[in-house]
Amino acid sequence: MQALIESARRKESVLVAGIDPIPARFPDEVKRMDLQPAEAVREFCTKILEAVEPLVAAVKLQAAYFERLGPAGMQVYGDLIQVATDLGLPTIADVKRGDVGPVAAAYAEAHLSIYGATCVTVNPYMGSDSVLPFLQEVRRQDRGGGVFVLVATSNPSAASFQEADIPPPYRSAARLVRDVGLYTRSGYPDAGAVVGVTRPEIGHTIRRLLPDQVFLAPGYGAQGGTAAGVRALLDNDRSGVLVNSSRAILYAYESDPGTLYADAARNVALNTRDALANAGARWK
Amino acid sequence: MQALIESARRKESVLVAGIDPIPARFPDEVKRMDLQPAEAVREFCTKILEAVEPLVAAVKLQAAYFERLGPAGMQVYGDLIQVATDLGLPTIADVKRGDVGPVAAAYAEAHLSIYGATCVTVNPYMGSDSVLPFLQEVRRQDRGGGVFVLVATSNPSAASFQEADIPPPYRSAARLVRDVGLYTRSGYPDAGAVVGVTRPEIGHTIRRLLPDQVFLAPGYGAQGGTAAGVRALLDNDRSGVLVNSSRAILYAYESDPGTLYADAARNVALNTRDALANAGARWK
Repeated sequence: MQALIESARRKESVLVAGIDPIPARFPDEVKRMDLQPAEAVREFCTKILEAVEPLVAAVKLQAAYFERLGPAGMQVYGDLIQVATDLGLPTIADVKRGDVGPVAAAYAEAHLSIYGATCVTVNPYMGSDSVLPFLQEVRRQDRGGGVFVLVATSNPSAASFQEADIPPPYRSAARLVRDVGLYTRSGYPDAGAVVGVTRPEIGHTIRRLLPDQVFLAPGYGAQGGTAAGVRALLDNDRSGVLVNSSRAILYAYESDPGTLYADAARNVALNTRDALANAGARWK
Repeated sequence: MQALIESARRKESVLVAGIDPIPARFPDEVKRMDLQPAEAVREFCTKILEAVEPLVAAVKLQAAYFERLGPAGMQVYGDLIQVATDLGLPTIADVKRGDVGPVAAAYAEAHLSIYGATCVTVNPYMGSDSVLPFLQEVRRQDRGGGVFVLVATSNPSAASFQEADIPPPYRSAARLVRDVGLYTRSGYPDAGAVVGVTRPEIGHTIRRLLPDQVFLAPGYGAQGGTAAGVRALLDNDRSGVLVNSSRAILYAYESDPGTLYADAARNVALNTRDALANAGARWK
């Protein structure tokens, strides 16, 4: 946090300017330049950064508005972080990423190292596993950065979730899934749930709360999930579940020397598909 | 969900292959090709997609591993979604994004339209505001897509958060912030909290839980937050808060006709900075 705090003291400002580039709202003087969208974002945001630099402690870049512009938008995102840094402004990458372990570490490397932001915003829903990799990257870099964890956000529907007085939080999440989904031609709602196979008793409880929803189930195999964990998630038709497997397939060749990696991947996918069918998970 | 379900039925498989490209784990036959990292990811993942296509209901792309490779990685991410689509495989963009309103809509457009995935994973912590924009994009496209909301994930620290029996969830998040932070030279821990200024009583409670942490505070101005909301977040030194303002600064020119946009932005930043100082928010 040191970089932010030193800047706030030096500037005598607690203000953070958020960079939310929405091309439809750009002024005529930018629109008239007839630039590609990503280049218009670069032009507008650079001028804004220069305009507010003396007045703000830091700038916060909203990653979504850059992501929407595809790879060219991500190039401008990185370039603007560099522009802000050159102006002496600490940057907060407002990415609100929430994932765990090596995936969180990849996000941390992306935004704090490759794109070079000083701080990031992080979502706590997956627990401390989802926050620590960002802090490790901040500490490794030792540039006075920090991590902001979403605790109480300012949007209207936050209260229903963050202040829910019926524990536990997974019930709030399940209720949310039930309330927002619309049934599709398939007979299933378009809002499904991510429910791990590693905690069968929780999975079974959630299935009772969400009898009709499609579950995308991580944690099978490598993370300790078993056929029993998959069965706990099945609906009344013994259906309704898709089971994800990532690294066990992709890197199957590591434990299958002499086999081409694509063949090793196919073999593991075949065995896993059949094991899941034998466990009773199928689509009717 | 229809596209996933039809595919699961046709393939007689509930298996979803996760695409988590980790270049260090690529086999020698890929490493030997001496490709740029993003091109090695393209080569490896294309072969994996072709290998597992007959066996899986869908593929899930882990966005973090593409994001880590910068803009070139995002190009390959989009191209691989196209490869999977051409193979007849529905795609789940595992982005776990969690943001609200127009920001969530921008993420939805990015992953479901620009990059062309069939489904996305979404984080529910900010409430239904953070899920509905993704569902709206799915419904608008009418391609049989869907949204998977994180309910109970499979990682070890998920239980401490998702099964916490001490309501409300913001307390779990605050505890998490307190437990993961390390004090830095600045005197503040490197893990801070995002706490909106729109709910002063919640903000005050969270400040008591986190007396030493830096708060990044959204919601001032446009979202209805006031000086009182900011004051509720101040620590015992009447410090510890950074206040974010995004669109009020960036698009200040809209309500200030005849002024250059950079000048309008500077004026609003100046007035906001001073209003916050007058409200008593400063860094000592």
